[in-house]
This record gives sequence, structure tokens and C-alpha cells, in this order.
Amino acid sequence: MVRKTWYSESLSLFTDLYELTMAYGYWKMGMLGEEAVFHLSFRKWPFQGGFAIAAGLETLINYLESFSFTASDIDYLHSLTDPQKKPLFEKDFLNYLKELKFTCDVDAVPEGTLVFPYEPLIRIKGPILQAQILESVVLNIINFQTLIATKAARVCLAAAGDSVVEFGMRRAQGIDGAISASRAAFIGGCDSTSHLLAGKLFGIPVRGTQAHSWIMAFENEIDSFRAFAKVMPHNTLFLIDTYDTLEGARNAVRVADSLKGEDFELLGVRLDSGDLNHLSIEVRKILDAAGYPHAKIMASNELDEHLIRDLKHQGSKVSIWGVGTNLVTGKDQPALDGVYKLSAVKTEKGVWEDKIKISEQTAKVTIPGFLQVRRYYQEGHFLGDAIFDERDPPSENPNLINMFDENFRKDFPKKTAFHDLLVPIYRKGKLCYEPPSLKEVQKKSKQELSQLLPAMKRFINPQPYFVSLDKKLHDKRLLLIEKMRRKT
Amino acid sequence: MVRKTWYSESLSLFTDLYELTMAYGYWKMGMLGEEAVFHLSFRKWPFQGGFAIAAGLETLINYLESFSFTASDIDYLHSLTDPQKKPLFEKDFLNYLKELKFTCDVDAVPEGTLVFPYEPLIRIKGPILQAQILESVVLNIINFQTLIATKAARVCLAAAGDSVVEFGMRRAQGIDGAISASRAAFIGGCDSTSHLLAGKLFGIPVRGTQAHSWIMAFENEIDSFRAFAKVMPHNTLFLIDTYDTLEGARNAVRVADSLKGEDFELLGVRLDSGDLNHLSIEVRKILDAAGYPHAKIMASNELDEHLIRDLKHQGSKVSIWGVGTNLVTGKDQPALDGVYKLSAVKTEKGVWEDKIKISEQTAKVTIPGFLQVRRYYQEGHFLGDAIFDERDPPSENPNLINMFDENFRKDFPKKTAFHDLLVPIYRKGKLCYEPPSLKEVQKKSKQELSQLLPAMKRFINPQPYFVSLDKKLHDKRLLLIEKMRRKT
Repeated sequence: MVRKTWYSESLSLFTDLYELTMAYGYWKMGMLGEEAVFHLSFRKWPFQGGFAIAAGLETLINYLESFSFTASDIDYLHSLTDPQKKPLFEKDFLNYLKELKFTCDVDAVPEGTLVFPYEPLIRIKGPILQAQILESVVLNIINFQTLIATKAARVCLAAAGDSVVEFGMRRAQGIDGAISASRAAFIGGCDSTSHLLAGKLFGIPVRGTQAHSWIMAFENEIDSFRAFAKVMPHNTLFLIDTYDTLEGARNAVRVADSLKGEDFELLGVRLDSGDLNHLSIEVRKILDAAGYPHAKIMASNELDEHLIRDLKHQGSKVSIWGVGTNLVTGKDQPALDGVYKLSAVKTEKGVWEDKIKISEQTAKVTIPGFLQVRRYYQEGHFLGDAIFDERDPPSENPNLINMFDENFRKDFPKKTAFHDLLVPIYRKGKLCYEPPSLKEVQKKSKQELSQLLPAMKRFINPQPYFVSLDKKLHDKRLLLIEKMRRKT
Repeated sequence: MVRKTWYSESLSLFTDLYELTMAYGYWKMGMLGEEAVFHLSFRKWPFQGGFAIAAGLETLINYLESFSFTASDIDYLHSLTDPQKKPLFEKDFLNYLKELKFTCDVDAVPEGTLVFPYEPLIRIKGPILQAQILESVVLNIINFQTLIATKAARVCLAAAGDSVVEFGMRRAQGIDGAISASRAAFIGGCDSTSHLLAGKLFGIPVRGTQAHSWIMAFENEIDSFRAFAKVMPHNTLFLIDTYDTLEGARNAVRVADSLKGEDFELLGVRLDSGDLNHLSIEVRKILDAAGYPHAKIMASNELDEHLIRDLKHQGSKVSIWGVGTNLVTGKDQPALDGVYKLSAVKTEKGVWEDKIKISEQTAKVTIPGFLQVRRYYQEGHFLGDAIFDERDPPSENPNLINMFDENFRKDFPKKTAFHDLLVPIYRKGKLCYEPPSLKEVQKKSKQELSQLLPAMKRFINPQPYFVSLDKKLHDKRLLLIEKMRRKT
């Protein structure tokens, strides 16, 4: 089942113009029969950390399931002109686009999987025109959700088992910046969101308290607490920092005391400003002394993984973390640097040719072939990954060359357990994959993280996970670099 | 005319749960007749710069024009439960929501206007339940677009008249992260976008060249250039860095030479990697020597305002800047810190009461009243702004107190020219404003920036613009702070 989306208009023009000028070129050059393989991968460890968590695949499937150019899309393309005011696209090409059906093969790493730099997360194989057009949208969806799932996992690592509520809608980057972020944050381990539409669309548990405006709408804080307690007797977290935080805590206690014996439970209080460490400790004392040891303290205010870790280190008494802006925007790195690169072309003669881009920047040299990732593991933890060409898999006793340092090589003993990460999603344009529920995806991401060595989950100078090229692919790539350097 | 949007499903749940728990509270406490005034403002100068550019209003109008809870929204709300598994909301409240019509007054600063910290960008006045519910969505839309319009203006200031193409779709934060960013970037001064859907929706000119994959899909670079020249004879910018940038420039020249006398024009070349300064200078020499002095050099690759300024300072020969990720994500500050604060409440007795939130953090103390902003100017430049209470406007010879430093006061002479920034958008839920075209908004933002002193547009330590409270409002606020401090 493909779940419903929040948009229903055509998003087929959600792409860059150059995808369509190239598509036009392939069409005009008679290259419609030409096939190609593209891969999406990223280059830099996000947040200077030691891992990323793949996310966004189901959103991409939603997109592909409704992929088709509408009459209004075609009309718009028809209106575009070149600098000489001549139509940019011939009418016959636009008619071709209008009839275009998606017929590619797609393989992808399931959501919630740990992924690392240079590893293909998505592989698209099929007519070059189609596989090319999808570049921009595939990047948009996978880059962002992978970024935020990764950030969320870091925040949850810092929270070390405490509840983390994603809170970021109001400062997210636009409507989908919020919707996709809530989704990805849940994948990364947040247990709930404040964001209702994400709750409706994805079944994420929703949570909420009050704003300062609720408190201010009443004559005084006590009246506002009393009113809220009446409205939500089983769901009361009082926001206590509108006027004076410690007095707010005492007022929360006064209201709870006055409702003793009634159908009411004080779930806790929320801090949204000030010194969260000091205040949480003092508020804890007030609540404990008044006989509310189970009332929780929730904190928010520009939190991220570093602040949460530091607050916990200081002994703060917060046990629910509301994390907003810094989570949903990936503040310290607001974009994953994913790229979508051509790696092979099937010419008219039916022969597949490997392709490589050599660059002035080593990090931008691509990996040729039909790529797959093999993950080796033992005794409940991951040993390392090998990127290989699916047509020439690693030997039983593979020789693996580190992506970041050629001199660092490994060979895993025979019979080391492994599995391959990319699984079939589409075959000839037909969906052949059942996306798991978001809850299952979250479970997977937690389970995967538990298999990564602790040193690789550090925030500062994490030990790098072993990401490698299978020697056969490594050698082929070197030869191709040589060949291209000679050619130009 | 309200232009069409790209979404068509209900976005009425695009809000935080607490907005609806508070709404439920107002309903349950019989406060439906209570009115309130809320303002959206931000606190920190974005990008450590000296200005921001208001954007997002038309998007907000689109949202408000389709505001209504659908049956499916209500069903979802009905399914929510509290920790004791009892329904979170009573059925009668949900019926009330279902019938809810928007009846507020909205005033706003038009898009493209220069705005500064603490100034209200949006003011919503009406039934507290409605004005409250809108908080999250108003913040989401205005925060993001204002951020990106501001970033774009900075990039365009650095480009100093060169063409700037917004390029960021593939690494934007989700679908709307791209759509709204393209819109806001155009407002801030970009002259075009690579993003087709933004072109279709907003009429922004679209531009594009080729990807490396086009070059790699052919036997060699020359073949790929020749093919592209055939396909787009009047729209040819060759991407020259796939294998070797300078050889790429020579190949571009070879292909252009071979097409002399034909219907073809070499518009230019594009660099996407390497040392953009060195390469642009060398490529310029190659193009000039070959007789293509009018062919332009476009550059992209993680550009921002600082890099562009630095490249220009070094004498680089780029004249078209493709700016992507760092622009559309506002990289160094991916969120504007906008807040939406209650400033007055009209009680059952029909009396308006000013409201204030006093906080442990001075920056979080709010401004009470019905706020408006008066901008004073002379001889084509802005002198300073005064935030005042609309019910008690500044005197002819106003006494203005700097928002950031009480000791810094100004009084402008009588008859200093001024205008007030917030204009009526809705009256009792009816739209009474015609959004200008996006082109007009862009013109406005450029014109406004030209009225700001150059020292205030510096990237490093800009001179702060004079943002003030009218003394009457300042004094009222002080009294209210005193009163609240006594109360708690």
C-alpha cells in the first residue's frame, strides 16, 4: 500500500530546467533507446559525525507513483523561449513528454539503514531520458530526509533514552520542510511530534502543552493553570516560565494540590527559557517536596545534541526534550551534499560502457558501474562496507580498499556474514516493494545504530567506519581514470 | 487575484497540536467571544547583517483563503486520545471547528519591504481561538521566506549587478523548501531560477545548461558539446569541467568555431569545480583569444555572498553566478527566529487589556499593544523606524528610544517624512488586499535596499539601523513589566 500524500497537484515540473533541456537533447539526438545507470550518494559525513540514516524512500515512491506531465505542465513548457524568443522545445518533444510513462528499474537502501559517504543510496537504471529527469527530485527528497533522520538520531543518542519530542514546524523551511522533517525525525528516533499534519499523514504520536499566550490570556498564572487542568485533566504539562519560573513551579503545585482527589493528574511542567540546568534542578526540588516525584520536567529552547548532552552531564533534571529548529533544519549543516551521478551507459549497440567524471577535485571523481553495497558483520556489530559492481561481486575472501585512504586495506575471512544493502523497488516502472510502516522504519534505525561501535557514534572525532571499494572495482576505476586523462 | 498554489489538499492541520488544545480550552472555558492581538516579529539580525526583507505574505494569503477543516481533518482529531486513552477533544468542539470560518483582521508589511528586529511583520486581531490556531503556520511561512529573501539580497549585493541564478532545488529542505525558496530568492533579487515548478507557479524566468551526465553520455566532450549546440543553438552554455576545465574551454571554442556561419551562438561556458578564480581568468583568456569576448563565464560550486565578494575582489572573470545550497537553505543561519506573541486581550467586558510576557531572558520580553511601525526618511534614505501603539501614535516631534540601547534616543524634526509599514490585508476575514506581482515585489526590495545607507549593508559589523520604541509605548511597557513583576 502506498500511503496518501499531502499534495495532489502535479509535481512533474518539480525539477531543474536542465533536466528537460537534456531530455530534449536525448530525444532530438535519437537517443531514446539509450539506457543509463545513475546513483545517488553523498560525500561528507553529516554533522562531522560517524554515520547517516537513509530516509525519504517512501516519499520518493509516492512521487514516482504519480509521475506524469499534465496538460498544464506541457502548456508551461510550451511557453518557454530561448534568448532569440524562439520556442525552447519542439512540440513533438512535448507530445512525447505528455505520453511518457516511467519504465525504469529502481534499487534503493531501505529507510532506517545506516549509510556512509560514497555509498549508493538509490540506483536508477533505464532510458537515459527518464533516469536523467528524475535527478533533481530524487536528490531533493533523499538529501533532506536523510539529513534530518541523521540529526534526529544524534539528538536521541544525546538524550540517552529520555523522550524526545520534535517541535520544529514553526521554523522549518517551508511546508514540506516541516512535514518531511517530522517524518524523518521520527525515523531517526524521536518518539513524537508537535505537528498535527505529520501525525495525520504518518501516524506519528502528537504531543503538545500550551503557549505563553494561553497563560497571558488569563488574569494570572494560577487562573490559566486551573483552566488548563480543567480542559485537559489527564494531559497537563504546565508551561511555567511566562513570568517567573520558580514561582511558576510553585503555582503548578498549588493548582495540583487544589485538585487533589479530583480526576486530575499533574504530568509535569515545561521550561522554555533561562538556565535550563539550574532551573530544572530547582523545579525538581519544588515538585519533589510537594509530593509530585512523578511529575516530569520538559525543556525546550534552541536545544541540539550538544546542549542536551551537556545538560545531562551537568546533572539537569529534564526528562522530556522538546527539540525544534536545530533538529528540523539540521542547523549546523542544513544540507546533505548528495549527488546523482551517471555511472554507465548502454549504447545503441547494446553494450554497457562504464562512465566516470574526473574532476579538479578528487572528492568529485565518481565511481563507475552498477553499484551495490555489501555490509559485513559479526557478533552483532558491523565490520565494514564494500561498494562493488553488481556484475562482478566480491570474492569469498574479498580484498577491500578504504575509500578515504588507499593504503588502508582489509580482507574479511571467508564466511564472514554479510548482506547487500540495495533492494529492488521498481522493475520496468512497476513498484515491487512494500514500504514498511514508519514505526518499523524507526525500529530498524535504532537496531542498526545499536550495531555500530560506540566510538563511531561519538560527536567529536568519531572513529571512521570502514567504507571501501572492492579491489576489482577499485582497479577498474583507476584504469578508467587513466583512460579519461589520456583522452582529454 | 490570488494565484494558484501547488498543493490542494487541506493544510488546516499544518499546525502544532498545542494550538488546538488551547483552542479547545478557549472553547471549553466559554471564551469564544474573547478577542486578541498577536504579532509576528523576529529578534536577531539575520546572517549577522544589517537588514531583512519581508517575504511570504502572498503564500500566507493563499493558505488563509483555503483555511477550513475537512471531514478527514476532523476524523483525525477525533481519533486522538489523552494518556488515559480518553478522547482528547469533545465532539461538540470538533463540530465547532468544522464550521469555523476565518473572521480575523490581518495587517502586514508588504513583501519586499526592509524590516528589522522586533518590528511586527504580521498582526492578527480577532477571536483568540482563531488568532491562536494560526500561530504555527504564519511563523512557518513568514520565517522561511523572509530568511531566504534576505539571503538572496545579500548574494545579489555581493554580485554587484552580475546575474544571479538560483540553483538550489536539489538540496533544498523538501519540496516546499525548494518552491518557497525560489520564490523568496527572486524577491531578494535573483534574476532567474533553475527550478521549473517555481517558473510555472510564479512566472520566474528559468535557466539551465547541462549536467556532467550529458557530457559523459557521449564518446567524448567535443561530441557532447556539438550535440548540445545542435539541440539548443541559441541557448548554449557549455559545462567545461567534466574532465579538464581548460581543455574543456578549448573544446567549447573548437565546437563554436566549427559552427561559424551557422545558426548558433556561444553564450558562454560554466565552471562547477576547481579554483574558480584561476580557472575563470584562464578560460577568459582562451575565449577572448579565440574571438569570443561576449561569451560569458558562469560559475557554481557552494557559492555564497562571502565567496562571491571574495572572487570579485580577486579579479575573477565570472559574470553569471549560480547559487544553490547556501542560498536556499540560508546555510549559516537556516532559520529566522520569528515569534508570534500575544500583546492584547479583549475581555468579556469589552475592554482591551495590554499583555506582556516577562522572561528570564531580556530578549524574550514582548511588546504590548496594537503595534504599527513608522518609517522616517529624507533625501532618499531611511532615517529610522519607530514601533508604536496604533491607538496612540507618535507625536509630530516624536521621542524615540532605541530598542537595543535605552540611552540612545532620537527625535526627528517636525514634518520629517514618514509612512507606516503595516497595511490592511483582511478585515473580518475578507481579503482586502491585492498582492502585487512577484516582479513588482522584487523591484520594491531593490528600491528599498537602495534607501539603506551603505554602511548598513556591510557583511561585517554593519552599522545598526535605528529601530526604536516610541516613548509612549516604551513607558507603557515599563509600567506593565513592573506590574507583572509585582503580581507573580
